Amino acid sequence: MEDNKIQELNTSPQLAPPSAGGESIHVFAPATVANVVCGFDVLGFAVNEPGDEVIMRMTNKPGITISKITGDDGRLPMDPAKNTVSVSVLHYLQSIGRTDVGLDIELHKKMPIGSGLGSSSASTVAGLFAIKTLLGDTADPAKLLPFAMKGEEMACGHGHADNVAPALFGGFVLIRSYEPLDVVRLPHPAGLWCAIVFPDVDVPTREARQIIRKNIQMKDAVTQWGNIAGLVSGLFMNDIDLIGRSMKDVLVEPVRSMLIPDFYKMREMALELGAVSFGISGSGPSVFAFTRDEETAKRITQKLQQHLTNLKIGSNTYVSTINDAGPKVIG
Amino acid sequence: MEDNKIQELNTSPQLAPPSAGGESIHVFAPATVANVVCGFDVLGFAVNEPGDEVIMRMTNKPGITISKITGDDGRLPMDPAKNTVSVSVLHYLQSIGRTDVGLDIELHKKMPIGSGLGSSSASTVAGLFAIKTLLGDTADPAKLLPFAMKGEEMACGHGHADNVAPALFGGFVLIRSYEPLDVVRLPHPAGLWCAIVFPDVDVPTREARQIIRKNIQMKDAVTQWGNIAGLVSGLFMNDIDLIGRSMKDVLVEPVRSMLIPDFYKMREMALELGAVSFGISGSGPSVFAFTRDEETAKRITQKLQQHLTNLKIGSNTYVSTINDAGPKVIG
Repeated sequence: MEDNKIQELNTSPQLAPPSAGGESIHVFAPATVANVVCGFDVLGFAVNEPGDEVIMRMTNKPGITISKITGDDGRLPMDPAKNTVSVSVLHYLQSIGRTDVGLDIELHKKMPIGSGLGSSSASTVAGLFAIKTLLGDTADPAKLLPFAMKGEEMACGHGHADNVAPALFGGFVLIRSYEPLDVVRLPHPAGLWCAIVFPDVDVPTREARQIIRKNIQMKDAVTQWGNIAGLVSGLFMNDIDLIGRSMKDVLVEPVRSMLIPDFYKMREMALELGAVSFGISGSGPSVFAFTRDEETAKRITQKLQQHLTNLKIGSNTYVSTINDAGPKVIG
Repeated sequence: MEDNKIQELNTSPQLAPPSAGGESIHVFAPATVANVVCGFDVLGFAVNEPGDEVIMRMTNKPGITISKITGDDGRLPMDPAKNTVSVSVLHYLQSIGRTDVGLDIELHKKMPIGSGLGSSSASTVAGLFAIKTLLGDTADPAKLLPFAMKGEEMACGHGHADNVAPALFGGFVLIRSYEPLDVVRLPHPAGLWCAIVFPDVDVPTREARQIIRKNIQMKDAVTQWGNIAGLVSGLFMNDIDLIGRSMKDVLVEPVRSMLIPDFYKMREMALELGAVSFGISGSGPSVFAFTRDEETAKRITQKLQQHLTNLKIGSNTYVSTINDAGPKVIG
């Protein structure tokens, strides 16, 4: 999945002829947990729940329209020149010389915006997977990654791939390098469950990024890369204990946790309830715990939600295994 | 191999009765490459050549003597209170309550001192493996690690484990954490060869450590942990291309390479000759290259040695696969 391979999309020959319109597709793409504690900017994984949905219809008129967005409380732009889904799809169409295509998009947000769960990535990947499937483009899905990153850049101000790549490929994904882009899919223990709690407070991605220190100590960096090497080893070795021991973050969590209500109390509760690990999802405010079973994950989401309710903070919770499929057609 | 397990050595019951003396053993322990480019302070691997040898004899008089050291040009102390081998062995004997044992040690250095090839670690591990074997201690070799680290602390001024751990366990070793000590043995592609060149210039470990920057940029740290995660993935995936792409160091090599004659020219030569990767071994001045075959490794050592000769710098070269056995009894 090196840069040079991704560029091959530009010459992909296996496309359907221009359509007379009418075909439609309904696609789901998963939410993702980026950063993954010690893996700031380079690690992410997809979950089975929540996720966003896109319904895409071929039309007779070249160009893209957005006819409906649900679940966003009116916060996302209907203007196709400003919406990350349509912008990414347009970049893709331009790259394959198919600006003759006419499309209408419905976007159904099934997770809160600004939650730290890769909301924009899920929508963008759903849109790209929809158009790729509609056009019968059999190219490697990896070749959609640069277009998804374009959308991410528009949504978050930086074109990082640690949400879009796991949303696109499913599973655990390492972004080994950005220049050139080098993406590695990692295995994970089958029995790993993920408990997610989204405390309904506002943590804009841009600001969460700005508070991170630009200069750090070498000794902290050594601690961090010992841990990410341990986490990657644990994923390959199916060693959940090693995964848990390695999921510590001495650099980003100490700063970003300040934006999350009662972060350390929630972590203490989760670990006492049997979590393997606990951390911030993406730039927050969502938090997540790995567990060895569904029951423990459910107990953790219930107790943390109750704790937030006591603080008069609303929350959404999700319990899921890791999504290995990435986007899928659901209708 | 967590801290608590290592402590179990203190209560190991499986020891031979006090000896009347006379038994002896001849042990080899391998040289090691620490840091491994992007794995500063946390990664190391052992090679089959070079390595140090210890001949240890039980004596009738409690206490340790050193009767001979060869290959050190008279640089190492014969005083058992000052030699890393005897000091480590004494710590081990104290921990198991066997200060009644009498030992004589011969140390045969088979590699240059101060070469960046884990010379002191190889000697120390050979000594510890010798006494463990002589006493019939069947405890996990992992339990020797803290004693080997004591010797390392004495030799280099810091008790790092990235040389002693691979010398003791063989193979590729990750030091996930120092407090508590958490060591993970990693797999590696069977066909990986290592070319080592030691340019005979003086780079004391302490000074090589002092020139490293204490404060670094977060963005460089992110690059580095993307690379170490990629290297670990490549080791598990038997993906030599990924290993090569990941072995880049933006933090330590730019500084330490200044202490090594013509480092960047040697790197350019090695990569042009077909090396998968090239970097500094430990704190230098030795450099190493990974290759896919013995022939390429030999060609690289020949050409680099010739280049150094042209610069009027002597050198030693070694070509070896990765040592998976650690220390071994050879007589």
